[in-house]
Amino acid sequence: MTEPTRADRFSFGLWTVGWQARDPFGDPTRPPLDPVEAVHRLADLGAYGVTCHDDDLIPFGSTAAERDRLIARFRTALAETGLVVPMMTTNLFTHPVFKDGGFTSNDRTVRRFALRKVARNIDLAAEFGAQTYVLWGGREGSEYDGAKDVRAALDRYREAVDVLAGYVQERGYGIRLALEPKPNEPRGDILLPTVGHALAFIANLDHSDIVGVNPEVGHEQMAGLNYASGVAQALWADKLFHIDLNSQRGIKFDQDLAFGHGDLVNAFFLVDLLEHGGPDGGPSYSGPRHFDYKPSRTEDIDGVWASAAANMRMYLLLRERAAAYRTDPRVARAREESGVDNLRIPTLGQGETFADLLADRSAFEDFDADKAGERGYGFVRLNQLAIEHLVGVRPA
Amino acid sequence: MTEPTRADRFSFGLWTVGWQARDPFGDPTRPPLDPVEAVHRLADLGAYGVTCHDDDLIPFGSTAAERDRLIARFRTALAETGLVVPMMTTNLFTHPVFKDGGFTSNDRTVRRFALRKVARNIDLAAEFGAQTYVLWGGREGSEYDGAKDVRAALDRYREAVDVLAGYVQERGYGIRLALEPKPNEPRGDILLPTVGHALAFIANLDHSDIVGVNPEVGHEQMAGLNYASGVAQALWADKLFHIDLNSQRGIKFDQDLAFGHGDLVNAFFLVDLLEHGGPDGGPSYSGPRHFDYKPSRTEDIDGVWASAAANMRMYLLLRERAAAYRTDPRVARAREESGVDNLRIPTLGQGETFADLLADRSAFEDFDADKAGERGYGFVRLNQLAIEHLVGVRPA
Amino acid sequence: MTEPTRADRFSFGLWTVGWQARDPFGDPTRPPLDPVEAVHRLADLGAYGVTCHDDDLIPFGSTAAERDRLIARFRTALAETGLVVPMMTTNLFTHPVFKDGGFTSNDRTVRRFALRKVARNIDLAAEFGAQTYVLWGGREGSEYDGAKDVRAALDRYREAVDVLAGYVQERGYGIRLALEPKPNEPRGDILLPTVGHALAFIANLDHSDIVGVNPEVGHEQMAGLNYASGVAQALWADKLFHIDLNSQRGIKFDQDLAFGHGDLVNAFFLVDLLEHGGPDGGPSYSGPRHFDYKPSRTEDIDGVWASAAANMRMYLLLRERAAAYRTDPRVARAREESGVDNLRIPTLGQGETFADLLADRSAFEDFDADKAGERGYGFVRLNQLAIEHLVGVRPA
Amino acid sequence: MTEPTRADRFSFGLWTVGWQARDPFGDPTRPPLDPVEAVHRLADLGAYGVTCHDDDLIPFGSTAAERDRLIARFRTALAETGLVVPMMTTNLFTHPVFKDGGFTSNDRTVRRFALRKVARNIDLAAEFGAQTYVLWGGREGSEYDGAKDVRAALDRYREAVDVLAGYVQERGYGIRLALEPKPNEPRGDILLPTVGHALAFIANLDHSDIVGVNPEVGHEQMAGLNYASGVAQALWADKLFHIDLNSQRGIKFDQDLAFGHGDLVNAFFLVDLLEHGGPDGGPSYSGPRHFDYKPSRTEDIDGVWASAAANMRMYLLLRERAAAYRTDPRVARAREESGVDNLRIPTLGQGETFADLLADRSAFEDFDADKAGERGYGFVRLNQLAIEHLVGVRPA
Repeated sequence: MTEPTRADRFSFGLWTVGWQARDPFGDPTRPPLDPVEAVHRLADLGAYGVTCHDDDLIPFGSTAAERDRLIARFRTALAETGLVVPMMTTNLFTHPVFKDGGFTSNDRTVRRFALRKVARNIDLAAEFGAQTYVLWGGREGSEYDGAKDVRAALDRYREAVDVLAGYVQERGYGIRLALEPKPNEPRGDILLPTVGHALAFIANLDHSDIVGVNPEVGHEQMAGLNYASGVAQALWADKLFHIDLNSQRGIKFDQDLAFGHGDLVNAFFLVDLLEHGGPDGGPSYSGPRHFDYKPSRTEDIDGVWASAAANMRMYLLLRERAAAYRTDPRVARAREESGVDNLRIPTLGQGETFADLLADRSAFEDFDADKAGERGYGFVRLNQLAIEHLVGVRPA
Repeated sequence: MTEPTRADRFSFGLWTVGWQARDPFGDPTRPPLDPVEAVHRLADLGAYGVTCHDDDLIPFGSTAAERDRLIARFRTALAETGLVVPMMTTNLFTHPVFKDGGFTSNDRTVRRFALRKVARNIDLAAEFGAQTYVLWGGREGSEYDGAKDVRAALDRYREAVDVLAGYVQERGYGIRLALEPKPNEPRGDILLPTVGHALAFIANLDHSDIVGVNPEVGHEQMAGLNYASGVAQALWADKLFHIDLNSQRGIKFDQDLAFGHGDLVNAFFLVDLLEHGGPDGGPSYSGPRHFDYKPSRTEDIDGVWASAAANMRMYLLLRERAAAYRTDPRVARAREESGVDNLRIPTLGQGETFADLLADRSAFEDFDADKAGERGYGFVRLNQLAIEHLVGVRPA
Repeated sequence: MTEPTRADRFSFGLWTVGWQARDPFGDPTRPPLDPVEAVHRLADLGAYGVTCHDDDLIPFGSTAAERDRLIARFRTALAETGLVVPMMTTNLFTHPVFKDGGFTSNDRTVRRFALRKVARNIDLAAEFGAQTYVLWGGREGSEYDGAKDVRAALDRYREAVDVLAGYVQERGYGIRLALEPKPNEPRGDILLPTVGHALAFIANLDHSDIVGVNPEVGHEQMAGLNYASGVAQALWADKLFHIDLNSQRGIKFDQDLAFGHGDLVNAFFLVDLLEHGGPDGGPSYSGPRHFDYKPSRTEDIDGVWASAAANMRMYLLLRERAAAYRTDPRVARAREESGVDNLRIPTLGQGETFADLLADRSAFEDFDADKAGERGYGFVRLNQLAIEHLVGVRPA
Repeated sequence: MTEPTRADRFSFGLWTVGWQARDPFGDPTRPPLDPVEAVHRLADLGAYGVTCHDDDLIPFGSTAAERDRLIARFRTALAETGLVVPMMTTNLFTHPVFKDGGFTSNDRTVRRFALRKVARNIDLAAEFGAQTYVLWGGREGSEYDGAKDVRAALDRYREAVDVLAGYVQERGYGIRLALEPKPNEPRGDILLPTVGHALAFIANLDHSDIVGVNPEVGHEQMAGLNYASGVAQALWADKLFHIDLNSQRGIKFDQDLAFGHGDLVNAFFLVDLLEHGGPDGGPSYSGPRHFDYKPSRTEDIDGVWASAAANMRMYLLLRERAAAYRTDPRVARAREESGVDNLRIPTLGQGETFADLLADRSAFEDFDADKAGERGYGFVRLNQLAIEHLVGVRPA
């Protein structure tokens, strides 16, 4: 039950297992990893998909011939393993030209270059059959409040996303775009810092129908926000197009730990939401379970693969625990006492108008607020039950 | 220039100067303040408006007669001083009945009571001529991820806000609603935790046209977010309906310090944005400059008034500094070098299609990214100029 | 195994189960709890001890007769139940007189009053047979950097602690003092904000031998610090005199959740440290397992007792999991590969001088740093094993 | 007055202006900077000193001949400019061999290598006449609580620092060691995370007399701690051996912004403490004002020098503002009203024993706590005065 299979739809970025572990204070500790080897090893471990930035596969500045060669051998690896490429994305952050951003650089020539770089790789994504194209604007932002006109930047951001969405539609690629929020790092403040800001931005797009979000665990937690709640709001808005699983230990630099190695309780409720949070108790999200993590810098290549496996195993363990939680009658009773499902009942009755409510004396004039305030919600008990399921305590 | 006048449109909540300084670990240090006295003193200090929760003016559970009496004497005070009531709001957080929230309580009777309590006070707001009705959902949230079905909660939140907006429109009150985000405290996690989440939520309302946001300095900074940037995104979405000024010193409990007593640099850029951030260099926001702060618990009533004055004085000082910053030719040159205004230029040329851009070899094939990457943006120099203006260094 | 017994040495503050759930934005949701009832219920649940502030037992300003009466009936409850009072402490934060602190108030008359209030309650603690007297200086601090001369404040803090420690020794009470750090709330910045600052302060005391620390989970985590590491440093300094268990979900206001309901992974490693972190694999700390938490404001009295039980149950569950972790041979192998125990070997050999090391060419001149840098430490695998034990996965 | 001179004792790390702007997501944006050029430019700008890691000057793995050549030309540059080297430090973090730390690596051979690398560079520091040797243990820590035995790590840390301090004394170098705390990044949690933890550690050293701290603005602020307070505690313990000035905007990754470009108010009070915080109103710290910052990645070499100049200019501006603050009679009056200096008066009178205080009925039995609790401390007014001085408002 904790052995991953392709039906679990686990995918990894090439940049995850391929991370050479260069950090702001340290040189790489691992040699480059051939994307072809990554594909084979991930397939062996039970993944069903692999994702990448353009530059992960084809180094920036490669010739057309080199590009073709690299794409061809990657294709071969995919064919040999059966792995798919459900998502692709663009690197608009490593090269110095993007030091002030891509779509929102203060230099228009850079903005134009960025659009072209993305468009070229969207073509490739379509060739690979990707359904989702992620846009992480990690360099779109600033360190200094006077350095960036935020409203102008949002104008340019909108222009870029709408142009690209239009391109995708015109070409009939069947791809949807997913914006990935992050509050800071590498910029002091990044535009669209949270799931909320990204969803709000999308609502102002011409092509908002094919643009959603790709929330990453650690990115929301870097702002001290509840990741499962953010994902729930994205689902509520019907905009959870993709997801980036990893973990983080509090508000600090972006840690990209293996899934479940940070805030374990929130991870449990996230899996519960994804797997059993649908209206019928079924899955609320059917896309890839994509890991965007970094094998710690202390690990050698064996540790890389062990960490890749750990991600999937944590997900499966939590899925199992969540299933037991959902089917435990004690939990059902506790949820009932806590009124968890009461909240699904509309506040106004069926056919009731607000005028009716205003006329309902039982709702206000005759409502005993002091008495109603005595109710205990039993939230601690419910949470204790959840944590017991998480730690594998079986109902007696 | 730093003496406040009514033209400055400064307003204060009754709950600010009237805060008795009870905190989680301490009893009140100040006696109750009569709202009538508050009105007179705020008028003397130069404010133009006063705002309140229903319960600030009329204690929860007052009889109808007592209610009328309290309203009447408040009206008299307004008439005597000329102060206006530009905004009102509802207390859905102090009474135990709201311990699990108002609009999103897990108890439907509470949700109905909450709607009624708000509606009653909207009627009063209309009587007072308020233009804005703020909704701060401080108890809408949870401590435990399993205790609240976030999507159901957002459904109920939407139901409540749409019903109330419909009510306002039906009555022809000419009032707009403004949601006030906060990430946490008093709940472990609050729904609509940031400006972004609130804007996104609004986009899903039936009555989104008359619903906007009321961002508070400290609330965004409690999530480590850049307040001026959040306000800019609200302006960009045309949703800055009201504003709550105060200050905060980092990610911790809600401090509600006087405006400018926290992150001074961000406060400078905020004032610059509000006063000179319009397309023509004029104001980008014309509503009240509303202070939602708490006089520190160490202060007696003299300290309360000194702190109220400090808020306005800080705003005026920063406005003066921002004006000098905007008109300094050195700043203009530095902004030019930094490309700040370049960002207002659309990335595609006038009439240019994306197909044209794809065909423009100068944008990509012939673009020398390495060369372009050598450009220095001069952001540190520009920021240094800003800070020198902030600290009152005059150009030589 | 998860039923608490007195041998487990669980204790609770009267202020925990007795918290009436008044918070900065809300009135109490629960009636007062009679300390006598608290004692009986805690005894029933399996606790061995109860702790209190002076004012928890005897309201501030009680007459001497009332004081005696309250003490007498509390004693009776202790006798009836067999509960002990292992720790007592003073409330120097609720009354307005302490609004700028107790030992470090800017008002000398307050400082003198504070010393007297503590001394009186130390006498009572001695009568009750307490071994530890905790000093939490929650009001010792400031909101404004110019309002408090920190070095003068530390001088006064030292004076106070040394005077009280001297008093304890002179009276032969056999009590040790334990300072409880906290970074902020209710003050903007509190003196001795972390375990480290408190330990450093203690090193400068005349009576440092009988002064240690009482670290609280949430307080360290409010500064984003690793709680288990802080406790380890306190143990290293032989200064872990007492411990406050609860939980916190990140950097925000002080949540005081039940133990294990926040950062579960850190809680697991904390219990492992306390129970199996001694040099021989036995306990590293033998004092009370004291819970300093708050039953959530949403709970009624049943929820209060459920939450009290949850604290103990979480501890026992984690103790069980940690025991399995410690005895799993796979863990032993993984620790070996990770070099965890290698760190106990001194860097210089037995009898080796630094001059010897300087002469050891194998250590530097002939050391192949590149080769040594290739080693994988296997930390992710080890962590995965730990989390599997935490979630109750048994070795195959 | 804002032109730096050598009397101001400004110094810079070679790694600051020489940072090539490689970050976790981006390649370098600037070419290498010759240390010799750095020395000349810093001298031109008004600095008096330059500092470095061993590897800044002599790339890791250089031959002895190359090492000598690099040292010789650096010496020449120093001689030509008159710049001094007041501090040196060791790089124990860039090379992969240090991926699990230097002094506390789980690999003993690495620990031995680290000691040797430091010792060699201490010899060079002595040759250059440095008075301070900084030890930043940025890799001493872990991501996973089970991966590092913290007490064993502290044992090894102590062993290393004591051995090195003994070496310095034996050689008669006249150098003092300064530990630099940091809470996290690049490790998930770093040992000795704050000034407090480092001071506490030092108290347990055999050679604690010559070991102090080197607090960095951003490092304390990354834990949400008040930097000026931390420096004050270090001064109180007589352990402020060196200081690292820069700035940070809240709890996030290590920003290393120019001094004064982050929390400006705290920077003002820091400068006030350093310049006027001595017992006689004179300086409390006489060592170098050392900048440990990074010119933003968006800057070219002109921006590098502009940012270097900005650091010094901010310090001088704040020094000027602090001087005006200190001499303003309104400030003196406000401090008096706030009791700021009252705190310097011992709580016990001269010759008073604690027994005397216990017998003083005016201190307790006859003390009117309610009355004393009515006092207003006037902290907001005092803070407003401070901020007005900071922003250059002159007393009328």
